[in-house]
Amino acid sequence: MSKPTILVTNDDGIYAPGLRALIDMMREFGRVIVVAPNKPHSGKSHAITIDSPLRLFKQREEEDYVEYATNGTPVDCVKLGEKVALDEKPDLLVSGINHGSNATVNVVYSGTMAAVIEGCMSRISSIGFSLDDYSQDADFESSRKYIRDIVRNTLENPLPEGNCLNVNIPAVPFNQIKGVRVCRQGLGYWDERFDHRVDPRKREYFWLTGEYVSIDGFEDTDEWALKNNYVAVVPMQFDWTSHEMIDKLKALNQDV
Amino acid sequence: MSKPTILVTNDDGIYAPGLRALIDMMREFGRVIVVAPNKPHSGKSHAITIDSPLRLFKQREEEDYVEYATNGTPVDCVKLGEKVALDEKPDLLVSGINHGSNATVNVVYSGTMAAVIEGCMSRISSIGFSLDDYSQDADFESSRKYIRDIVRNTLENPLPEGNCLNVNIPAVPFNQIKGVRVCRQGLGYWDERFDHRVDPRKREYFWLTGEYVSIDGFEDTDEWALKNNYVAVVPMQFDWTSHEMIDKLKALNQDV
Repeated sequence: MSKPTILVTNDDGIYAPGLRALIDMMREFGRVIVVAPNKPHSGKSHAITIDSPLRLFKQREEEDYVEYATNGTPVDCVKLGEKVALDEKPDLLVSGINHGSNATVNVVYSGTMAAVIEGCMSRISSIGFSLDDYSQDADFESSRKYIRDIVRNTLENPLPEGNCLNVNIPAVPFNQIKGVRVCRQGLGYWDERFDHRVDPRKREYFWLTGEYVSIDGFEDTDEWALKNNYVAVVPMQFDWTSHEMIDKLKALNQDV
Repeated sequence: MSKPTILVTNDDGIYAPGLRALIDMMREFGRVIVVAPNKPHSGKSHAITIDSPLRLFKQREEEDYVEYATNGTPVDCVKLGEKVALDEKPDLLVSGINHGSNATVNVVYSGTMAAVIEGCMSRISSIGFSLDDYSQDADFESSRKYIRDIVRNTLENPLPEGNCLNVNIPAVPFNQIKGVRVCRQGLGYWDERFDHRVDPRKREYFWLTGEYVSIDGFEDTDEWALKNNYVAVVPMQFDWTSHEMIDKLKALNQDV
């Protein structure tokens, strides 16, 4: 194939080491356009900016490489990338490498994966990468071979329309990663509470805090794969219908 | 059943007429706790606030009624409602009535429906209501009978864990609504562009704009129901795995 165009974004912001590692890996494959937020947007999910104008600042330009920062969200980055920076669909969209896991239901809150789902909705082959390590000095090098293989595979075999990939990488040295597992999203919930404090003006405020509770650590889940040092690859889609409930509800609602 | 506790939220903000209409409808059923954002959060999806403290202001308290405003997002409202305002799970969570449709893929961007999915993830029976009319003086009265029936049904038959409802109501007078249709989420995409402008300081800025393109207006979709003056009820869930892709990917990735 001729040199592919790859759109790169993330939710940790344009200076995040995980983004820098991913850019470096993507430049081996072709022309790279980066559109990333100018500040962190973790937990911002699929938010878009509709009540204020968006800015797009070109930060760097080299052969086969352009980098933009924006005041927008990760999903805005995908829209700006396709419609302004490129004015065409890229061959591939990659988001990450996120500092921290986006396995299980965390995908619902994730800005990294929202960018991927946005790409998927816009009919672009899209992949999110996350490393199971929140620290700023996380080691992204051990994931290089796996990310490269998954990207090469996806460039050769674009994902069917309506499908994207959520890739989570265990935070262990390369020689401890056991391989790739294609799996489903594990289910669970956050057992949360609020840390209740009082400010110097005697007004209350709250910080969200909590722990993840797994209810579904089976061998076919991303949670299991990650815990057992596999790279977890979950194919995702954006039809959120609970298809199995349709007939049950039809029966219940027949009197409405 | 004894008097149920109903948590009410929205994404248009605490003063939105749609929220006021929903509160009024819910007070017929039991004890109502409102936790709503102090400003509009349309398009904020499943965003949560993790980088700044949350505030919760009690605005009004009457028998079986308490109302709070917060600086948080719709999803924060659900967490604050359950963990701070109530300190227990409500019997039902309702979100809306949104000013504008949340049918088809709009559900992905919606703060109204993100609150519902959050309730669902927290194992609360949860329903989102949206009226297909963006105006501030939309007529919510024609939806009263349908909302009341759906809420009564759901209080009597709580939704199975992991399922919630997305209810979209056509913007027509009551006598033109043809009934309720249980359906699936219609698929399509936004054909977007950016309105490109220059500010007085000669810097560029962009406004997102575009039209929805349907690729799936079949009779079993919410899009069809709404267009044909039915109340569209879509059961939803938060497992985003593309289950049918798992085996295909396993075949493709066997060399990785």
